[in-house]
Amino acid sequence: MIVTSKDESLGLDGFYKESELPLLIKRKGMAIWNDGVVEILDRRKLPHSQIYINCHNTEEVATAIEEMVIQGAFSISIAAGYGLALSAQNSIISMDEICHAALRLKKTRPTGLALSRILDLCIIKAENAIKNNLSVADEIIKTTDTVASNLAMQARKTAQFALTKLNSGDTLLTHCFPDRSYVYLLMEAKYNNIMLNVICSETRPYLQGTKLSSWCASELGFNTYVISDGMGGALMKQKKINAFITAADTVCMDGSIANKVGTYQYALAANSNNVPYYVLRQSGPDMEYNNGDSVVIEERSGDDLLFMKGDRIAPEGVQGLYPCFDITPPELVSAIITDRGIFEPHKISTYKTSKAFLDSQI
Amino acid sequence: MIVTSKDESLGLDGFYKESELPLLIKRKGMAIWNDGVVEILDRRKLPHSQIYINCHNTEEVATAIEEMVIQGAFSISIAAGYGLALSAQNSIISMDEICHAALRLKKTRPTGLALSRILDLCIIKAENAIKNNLSVADEIIKTTDTVASNLAMQARKTAQFALTKLNSGDTLLTHCFPDRSYVYLLMEAKYNNIMLNVICSETRPYLQGTKLSSWCASELGFNTYVISDGMGGALMKQKKINAFITAADTVCMDGSIANKVGTYQYALAANSNNVPYYVLRQSGPDMEYNNGDSVVIEERSGDDLLFMKGDRIAPEGVQGLYPCFDITPPELVSAIITDRGIFEPHKISTYKTSKAFLDSQI
Repeated sequence: MIVTSKDESLGLDGFYKESELPLLIKRKGMAIWNDGVVEILDRRKLPHSQIYINCHNTEEVATAIEEMVIQGAFSISIAAGYGLALSAQNSIISMDEICHAALRLKKTRPTGLALSRILDLCIIKAENAIKNNLSVADEIIKTTDTVASNLAMQARKTAQFALTKLNSGDTLLTHCFPDRSYVYLLMEAKYNNIMLNVICSETRPYLQGTKLSSWCASELGFNTYVISDGMGGALMKQKKINAFITAADTVCMDGSIANKVGTYQYALAANSNNVPYYVLRQSGPDMEYNNGDSVVIEERSGDDLLFMKGDRIAPEGVQGLYPCFDITPPELVSAIITDRGIFEPHKISTYKTSKAFLDSQI
Repeated sequence: MIVTSKDESLGLDGFYKESELPLLIKRKGMAIWNDGVVEILDRRKLPHSQIYINCHNTEEVATAIEEMVIQGAFSISIAAGYGLALSAQNSIISMDEICHAALRLKKTRPTGLALSRILDLCIIKAENAIKNNLSVADEIIKTTDTVASNLAMQARKTAQFALTKLNSGDTLLTHCFPDRSYVYLLMEAKYNNIMLNVICSETRPYLQGTKLSSWCASELGFNTYVISDGMGGALMKQKKINAFITAADTVCMDGSIANKVGTYQYALAANSNNVPYYVLRQSGPDMEYNNGDSVVIEERSGDDLLFMKGDRIAPEGVQGLYPCFDITPPELVSAIITDRGIFEPHKISTYKTSKAFLDSQI
């Protein structure tokens, strides 16, 4: 059953009530379509302020993504789907215009592929709509809604597989905000009375660990701690961590992982200290990438390292570097956990031929 | 020749002019004795404000050290030496009182031993002063001045050995503020026309890399960059770093290194990517510690991870963890570089029987 955004009683996953879910995996914790406006929760202001950015056209959605109003591969994808619908709502639109708008949205984040996938699917649906004289905007919205629900159900299934690797009392280390699969892992743990301790690496400079990952864990009642990005290795060496868990912006066909910069260092430390490193990647590998060498590493402004709350903290003349992602080779990954089961990293390419979890996989 | 703090023409090292040195290794960049007051440069306000904290008694110096007004093992030692003199300046003092004041100062930083060493030496000198009816305060100040000069000369000699490991055009990664040996390394490089690029890991939460290490490098005209504490490994993997260099708060007799938390992760990444990791430790190992298991890891308040500029950034209910130091095992260290030469880590215990660089080593 596909639950659309019109059903307020159940969350996107179709199992938990919307009210039971931490805000970041509620519909309104990502992006919603509201009568011709895309409302995006501004994650930069969390956890203390819940402010929504109202986007009235594709460019505003693209800018919101670029400015980190929203983050996380799948949340971004949903915002982008609705953002594409904005380009089609007011006029008879040509395929050229839709492709142009989709290209603008794709350019916002070159590293992940989830964004490209949803936009490519929306383009196909738009083409059908034009052929069949249907509303292009409605078709794009419906497609985005369906994808959002599918992704939530996949995330929950992935979480169920991941939970088989954990025991009550375990302490997890996370880095950045590992998005819905991680939050569903915490949901499933709570539902099954498996109490976890969660250590969130703060993830400089945007502090997604401090602001987002820690919030979801504490909302659900788990003991939650924040550390700096240099501390996880030391805690592993002290045997204080039972598993290191992240999402992945890209999973290559050889099992290499592109994720928020800092992941590679933690994976090395985990490997050296016999701590398993699990990658939550509900939808399997990105067939476009054979290995890590082909992944484009997005470089953001190094100013984020030089300023704090608007004030310069570094001396004049000093520059900042901010490669957003790093590549972790498959030999440092214990397992890639998906909606179709748990894969050794070098076997992740078999995901594509494994039994699908959803009949109409998107 | 021992240069005392009264000679303004030459720096503590007796070679470079005071005016040629970056502020942090000038006398007034650490702590100075000024007519019964210990003036400590407040490193928390750097690089934009040069504010001095005036300490009038031992307790004020101890508090300044605890509150990170000053940091770096040797700078702290000098402040502590003068801080002990404060306890002896106004009255006839007993050895009990001196030992009590020294104990207070030692308690400020349990991990490093340089602090204990200078205080123990000052206690011996104070005992002699009492026996010989000399001014206890004057003897402690003189001892501190001598130690400060010796340490600077040792640091410069260490830097000369370290420079033999580097080539013009090399890019160094540093973590935290590796204190005087690092700054003298940059001084010696500049003096010998060896141009380096310096990448400073910001070192959360106090940002010593952003504020101090980057400042010294840019003051001397080197290309200087700041990264987050999660980025160094990725840059090593991209072959952008030629050497990882730190100081050490403690060097154990087996070659284990206790240094600012985050060092261990970088040492692992360096080892995995064939990047040499050099430890600058001018005065050799700490005989009191056989191996890393016996080092006390100082835990500071985790609040430093939860607040930014006074505002809470983490959700309520979330806690911070802040183990200050981590232990890097000797197999991850390429060399420990001292004033007596370059040692393989497992041979560092032979430092004690190597030819001394200074005749009156302290």
